[in-house]
Amino acid sequence: MLKNKSLVSIDDVSNEDLEEIFTLSDRMLGVVESNKNPHLMDSKIMATLFYEPSTRTRLSFESAMHRLGGSVISVSDASSSSVAKGETLADTIRMAEGYSDIIVMRHPLEGAARLAAQFSSKPIINAGDGSGQHPTQTILDLFTMWKEFGKIDGLKIALIGDLKYGRTVHSLILALSRFNVELTVISPPSLSIPEQFFSRIPENVKVRKSEKMEGFVEDADVLYVTRIQKERFADKNEYLSLIGSYSVDLKIVESLKKNAIIMHPLPRIDEIKPEVDFTKYARYFKQASYGIPVRMALISMILGVN
Amino acid sequence: MLKNKSLVSIDDVSNEDLEEIFTLSDRMLGVVESNKNPHLMDSKIMATLFYEPSTRTRLSFESAMHRLGGSVISVSDASSSSVAKGETLADTIRMAEGYSDIIVMRHPLEGAARLAAQFSSKPIINAGDGSGQHPTQTILDLFTMWKEFGKIDGLKIALIGDLKYGRTVHSLILALSRFNVELTVISPPSLSIPEQFFSRIPENVKVRKSEKMEGFVEDADVLYVTRIQKERFADKNEYLSLIGSYSVDLKIVESLKKNAIIMHPLPRIDEIKPEVDFTKYARYFKQASYGIPVRMALISMILGVN
Amino acid sequence: MLKNKSLVSIDDVSNEDLEEIFTLSDRMLGVVESNKNPHLMDSKIMATLFYEPSTRTRLSFESAMHRLGGSVISVSDASSSSVAKGETLADTIRMAEGYSDIIVMRHPLEGAARLAAQFSSKPIINAGDGSGQHPTQTILDLFTMWKEFGKIDGLKIALIGDLKYGRTVHSLILALSRFNVELTVISPPSLSIPEQFFSRIPENVKVRKSEKMEGFVEDADVLYVTRIQKERFADKNEYLSLIGSYSVDLKIVESLKKNAIIMHPLPRIDEIKPEVDFTKYARYFKQASYGIPVRMALISMILGVN
Repeated sequence: MLKNKSLVSIDDVSNEDLEEIFTLSDRMLGVVESNKNPHLMDSKIMATLFYEPSTRTRLSFESAMHRLGGSVISVSDASSSSVAKGETLADTIRMAEGYSDIIVMRHPLEGAARLAAQFSSKPIINAGDGSGQHPTQTILDLFTMWKEFGKIDGLKIALIGDLKYGRTVHSLILALSRFNVELTVISPPSLSIPEQFFSRIPENVKVRKSEKMEGFVEDADVLYVTRIQKERFADKNEYLSLIGSYSVDLKIVESLKKNAIIMHPLPRIDEIKPEVDFTKYARYFKQASYGIPVRMALISMILGVN
Repeated sequence: MLKNKSLVSIDDVSNEDLEEIFTLSDRMLGVVESNKNPHLMDSKIMATLFYEPSTRTRLSFESAMHRLGGSVISVSDASSSSVAKGETLADTIRMAEGYSDIIVMRHPLEGAARLAAQFSSKPIINAGDGSGQHPTQTILDLFTMWKEFGKIDGLKIALIGDLKYGRTVHSLILALSRFNVELTVISPPSLSIPEQFFSRIPENVKVRKSEKMEGFVEDADVLYVTRIQKERFADKNEYLSLIGSYSVDLKIVESLKKNAIIMHPLPRIDEIKPEVDFTKYARYFKQASYGIPVRMALISMILGVN
Repeated sequence: MLKNKSLVSIDDVSNEDLEEIFTLSDRMLGVVESNKNPHLMDSKIMATLFYEPSTRTRLSFESAMHRLGGSVISVSDASSSSVAKGETLADTIRMAEGYSDIIVMRHPLEGAARLAAQFSSKPIINAGDGSGQHPTQTILDLFTMWKEFGKIDGLKIALIGDLKYGRTVHSLILALSRFNVELTVISPPSLSIPEQFFSRIPENVKVRKSEKMEGFVEDADVLYVTRIQKERFADKNEYLSLIGSYSVDLKIVESLKKNAIIMHPLPRIDEIKPEVDFTKYARYFKQASYGIPVRMALISMILGVN
């Protein structure tokens, strides 16, 4: 039950919750496609409080709230605004809770959302706290797989790219580990999954490691590609020599199973070639658009209106 | 009658208006708590035009408008936006009035709101003009007292902190002076009420002056604490030696009357210790949240829809 | 038919479309004046995606959408936001189309809107692309003339100021050329209409050229005044010596026909003296306010709801 609760981490969501979220997200997708305003949030206000800019995430939440018929008040760059001037996060949250019914917060520091939730009488949704969590991204990733394959159990998922720093991919791996999935983790050695993280993956999950895609993606149902950030490399030549090997192109695409899908949390830079966009495997834009029904479902469940 | 009028100064509001505002604010508080959208502003648009950032004030107005069922268009930093490029304030206002039904304006220069009101055919609400007025803050301060005590007449109010530069506290003192109140003004000598301001307080109001809280707050119904800004002191050591003496802590709280309340316009820095937040005297967060029903009432009265 | 189409250039709009837009804009003006929310866009979301700030244009679109009962998600400075970080415009648009029903875009580069429209499955309205087009400005200019005179055919229009760089005025001239109008183009030699542009004006349009207003504005129905930007002049003295000759003052106004109107796309600096604002000829603020019904009409036609 998410009702009246904050959503700070994917751990706040049980597998039972997940099933309920998927079903409701699917219904919300119907609402979006029906082009009718359900007026579920007629009297509700969402405050989006972004201490670091993330236009994509902010717009997705705001669109979801509008699709539900609700209103939004917004601080798109709280860190440079007056909100930040000497005031504690606790005080800012106590202001925001007086002005709204639900608070969506993004913050550069891990743990900020948990702290905010402790001080707030209104539910907080964590929209990313530094190297911490971004649970709605994880949930929309899972929903995409559920929607495309009808289930998550049994899927073979290849995770490709920066598996060392990527918050998104760590959360996703832990969430996938609740299901019976087979994982293949593919990254350059310098960006492979940290050992201490690796040890948190439960034993029931089969994990294969590889440094290349060839020979390891052909049987995958899902290719989950993540961004390799140039800034991670002191030596730019190292980046340039690597990026080609972790870039999904038409050659890779042709080696995939016929029902495989390619996902990416976006924005993508060079990790997926533009020509792949036009193949039947590309699902990353659809995945992004699923952010709307998933967030509609979460807002509805948390506010107890659905 | 506030209908179709601009609200630039607390002087634009008669005592009769105040009574009406309080009653309507109380009804609006009921609207907020009932969690129903009254759809009073279904066809109305508010423009928030902020020439200096004040996230707190902007969000409060926008939340109030949404709670009434209205829409908002917003410029959160007009001074750095294209609006400001060489255009006169008069021309900007004439644009905004073509796009909206009511304009909420914040400006760094005293008198800007009055000027805007002269050029606008739509009502202007002054959300702070430099060292000038911020009438909705004053009204919500008064409403808080009225709501907590059922009346303002007869209250003993101690005003503590920077009484020299604080716009908020000057407006409040003048507004309180319309009632039969007893004031105690408590500040360091370097931040005491300016003589010329003091002379504007009518003779019927009893005013006591003090440099310390002890012996002067014990009989107060209201402690109105304001921020002492570090920037006011050339000598930082002077600030540090002072701030402790004007900070409300548990020791001060224990000396208060049992029904006393502590108010603060927020944001607070060190003037009220965090442990005070959890005492029954703390009313500053509630005071901030009263900004919503008070602004709902004002918008409704000005637009003639309530 | 504009339904489900992008509006990138005034060339996307036929004369037949224009007639329909004018009639519908007039009806939308009635909607605004009736102070009723038509709830036409109850389930629709507009995304305003501004890669360069233009508060005036953004607020006008957002106000129009709210007047129709719709919702808005907004990026007021996309270029400095995360949207811009390394992501292609195509990818950003594919995100925005997943979040909204119609996208209003402003971009510093000519051609950006056309590119966006090619990648988007949702209609794009170009709100200005560099030295390219700003079709809704042109349409509201035409609507102002149509509304004031009941027709455009037969009008004598004097265009005054910077006719070399002004995007607005070039689009307007080409659009006016579809009608039987007589044009007088008045500018300093250094800011006269470029020859190559001149050759695009069809032969049926009578065009007179002049370097001064006197003797050339007395028979005009419309004075369309544009801003002369100081930055165009290497020599500031040249600017100062010129600006007086292209500034509309009371002396010029007194020489006009009694039904003449003065228009300006705003913001104006020195090109029209403030005292002219109070004469019956001034129509520039009304023109700006017509931006609302015109944009309401366009949004309605494009989304097929009216």
